[in-house]
Amino acid sequence: MKDLTIDITRLMQRLQALGEIGALSGGGCCRLALSDEDRKGRDLVTGWMRDLGLAVSVDGIGNVVGVRAGQQDGPPVMIGSHIDTVATGGIYDGCLGVLAGLEVVQTLDDARIVTKYPIAVAFFTNEEGARFAPDMMGSAVHQGTLGLDAALAVTGIDGLTVGDELRRIGYAGVAETGNLRARCFVEMHVEQGPILDATGTEIGVVEGVQGISWSEFTFSGVANHAGTTPMNMRCDAGIVAARTAVEARAIADDMGGDQVATVGHLEMVPNLVNVVPNQVQMTVDLRNTGESLLKAAEARLFDFAQKAADVEGVSIARRTLARFEPVVFAAEMVDLIDTTAKARGLSTRRMPSGAGHDAQMFAPNCPTAMIFVPSRDGISHNIEEFTAPDHIRAGADLLLHVVLQKASD
Amino acid sequence: MKDLTIDITRLMQRLQALGEIGALSGGGCCRLALSDEDRKGRDLVTGWMRDLGLAVSVDGIGNVVGVRAGQQDGPPVMIGSHIDTVATGGIYDGCLGVLAGLEVVQTLDDARIVTKYPIAVAFFTNEEGARFAPDMMGSAVHQGTLGLDAALAVTGIDGLTVGDELRRIGYAGVAETGNLRARCFVEMHVEQGPILDATGTEIGVVEGVQGISWSEFTFSGVANHAGTTPMNMRCDAGIVAARTAVEARAIADDMGGDQVATVGHLEMVPNLVNVVPNQVQMTVDLRNTGESLLKAAEARLFDFAQKAADVEGVSIARRTLARFEPVVFAAEMVDLIDTTAKARGLSTRRMPSGAGHDAQMFAPNCPTAMIFVPSRDGISHNIEEFTAPDHIRAGADLLLHVVLQKASD
Repeated sequence: MKDLTIDITRLMQRLQALGEIGALSGGGCCRLALSDEDRKGRDLVTGWMRDLGLAVSVDGIGNVVGVRAGQQDGPPVMIGSHIDTVATGGIYDGCLGVLAGLEVVQTLDDARIVTKYPIAVAFFTNEEGARFAPDMMGSAVHQGTLGLDAALAVTGIDGLTVGDELRRIGYAGVAETGNLRARCFVEMHVEQGPILDATGTEIGVVEGVQGISWSEFTFSGVANHAGTTPMNMRCDAGIVAARTAVEARAIADDMGGDQVATVGHLEMVPNLVNVVPNQVQMTVDLRNTGESLLKAAEARLFDFAQKAADVEGVSIARRTLARFEPVVFAAEMVDLIDTTAKARGLSTRRMPSGAGHDAQMFAPNCPTAMIFVPSRDGISHNIEEFTAPDHIRAGADLLLHVVLQKASD
Repeated sequence: MKDLTIDITRLMQRLQALGEIGALSGGGCCRLALSDEDRKGRDLVTGWMRDLGLAVSVDGIGNVVGVRAGQQDGPPVMIGSHIDTVATGGIYDGCLGVLAGLEVVQTLDDARIVTKYPIAVAFFTNEEGARFAPDMMGSAVHQGTLGLDAALAVTGIDGLTVGDELRRIGYAGVAETGNLRARCFVEMHVEQGPILDATGTEIGVVEGVQGISWSEFTFSGVANHAGTTPMNMRCDAGIVAARTAVEARAIADDMGGDQVATVGHLEMVPNLVNVVPNQVQMTVDLRNTGESLLKAAEARLFDFAQKAADVEGVSIARRTLARFEPVVFAAEMVDLIDTTAKARGLSTRRMPSGAGHDAQMFAPNCPTAMIFVPSRDGISHNIEEFTAPDHIRAGADLLLHVVLQKASD
């Protein structure tokens, strides 16, 4: 049993075949949620599920779940991720977790192994949020965090609604949402960051998902002539923004650990070389795996910005654009992934996920964890996204043995 | 003679009448250089010159000079400024210096005073540079810094050329440019800054014009996911820009004196809340009255930016958008203005001009100085621009007595 391995050629063929749908010239693909390309991708994967003899159901938000029966009935060990992409996505993000799940099923079939508990492979609607907000929509509805009606009413960037588009592509299913509880949940995913690649590590053992705090500051001062206005008579919105951006970096540097801080968006008014800016709008993205640490980072940032504005005679307005608490995965699942990987001779690194994933929606309701495999140069949401077949093989084999163990407990 | 004073009612009437041409609703006016409104303004002021018996000439770039004869021939004591405005200008900027000159002439006429040397009142084409670059175009051609043909060939923001527009409005004159040397030059102007108003000072004795250094930095790093990219693996163009902006302020604070530093323009790419910016374009405007100090400020800024970029693994490109050396006005003229003002019981403050003025084109060729009067709240290039009649009266009386003395030496 320990020597059981997936068929990497078969898995890569499925990845390539799915990547052909919505393929972009130069590589990668575009399968925005509930688009015609998403429908074709869904049809392909659902067909594979049926070919494998899985009992397929589609729920009201279009999540597709295929169940392989066990010796006993009851909640399944669930493997899941998503097959929608951003507009310029790679072929690995999301798809790998779903297709590795099918590969696990087929490997068990080939070995004529019937597990004690059922195993389910699922893909969830609109994980990316590139067409409809919020992201992780299907898994949120599946686990009851988001109401079905609210999700169906969401209007996308093209003015069409989730409900109408689901019906149009034929994936407005009848299975109930919000009441399927898995025995446990495992998601395999590309890291989408540079750590595993840079450190030469094969497996990322994901301990949780970072909490996210997005703040938008609007600093308002007085526009003045850059030549005739003495420094001590300025109310310069720009210098307050610059000092706050430098402080955000200092917060991350001082706190260390998982704390990250990013100023990604800044708009200056009037934005002229010889006029002291009277208004600057700026965002700060703070993330940490610890809620108390994230709160401490926010407190230091907000306090600094207020004082910097006061010193300059600039007013300040702050708006929260997004705020998610960190998610901590179950220690038993994290440990199982780590020890199983090590037993298979794989190098591992415990790490948080800096991005959101479907798994975090399951974490409050069942033991949940994730397996990361390396992203070359950390590149993702980009047609250059790449994970080496050897890394995919190692990750899928690990997924197989973790699932096998959880389905046999 | 010491009791001779200008007629503030007459001067204010001329200011208001000129301000009616191109008047904007809500106040202020728009008379862009060589526009129909500029032509109407020129016709009005030239008519006043002729009414006062001045010998009017128009040169090849459209500068208009009216000369009042003295007991002797030879270079005149020249009073000058401009009557063009920015798109949302006030009625004082430029016009005050020209119309105060006419008021000086009329006051001398009323008192039947014939000075030893001639007195000239001039207005120079396109001081603002709002339609055609560079600014101070007419005075630059007048004093030989800029060639006439080059100036005539300049294309404006609307695609029309200086030469064509000069002919269209009938101000392509025949007087030669580049060979009229004044005996001395005095320009009265609103401060366009807050210092006189804030300190309750009646007269700014302008010692020179600040040197100007405009640099555009382009910082280029790597766009990365704000959640999954550890701080120590980032090449963040934004943090380099922010640190350089903070350093620019520190340079001005540390150097003190006249040194000012402004970051007025900043563009971030891709400018998304959750993406580390891979490119930032940013300008820094440095000004000082001392060339060696300005060079020191530049050197410190450029060195800091380079090191900050190196530390972050970000590349840096720098482009000089503008560079003018400081202009120092003749001590004899500056002293004369200061002592004459004090003798008239006016409070004075010696100061540099932070903005460019026609006077700086004369400074290399003849004794030159400027008289500043307060701008309420330092506001200029704005329809809210305002200088109180009492301040205008004090400044114009000072101009009268300074000119009278220089024309009698």
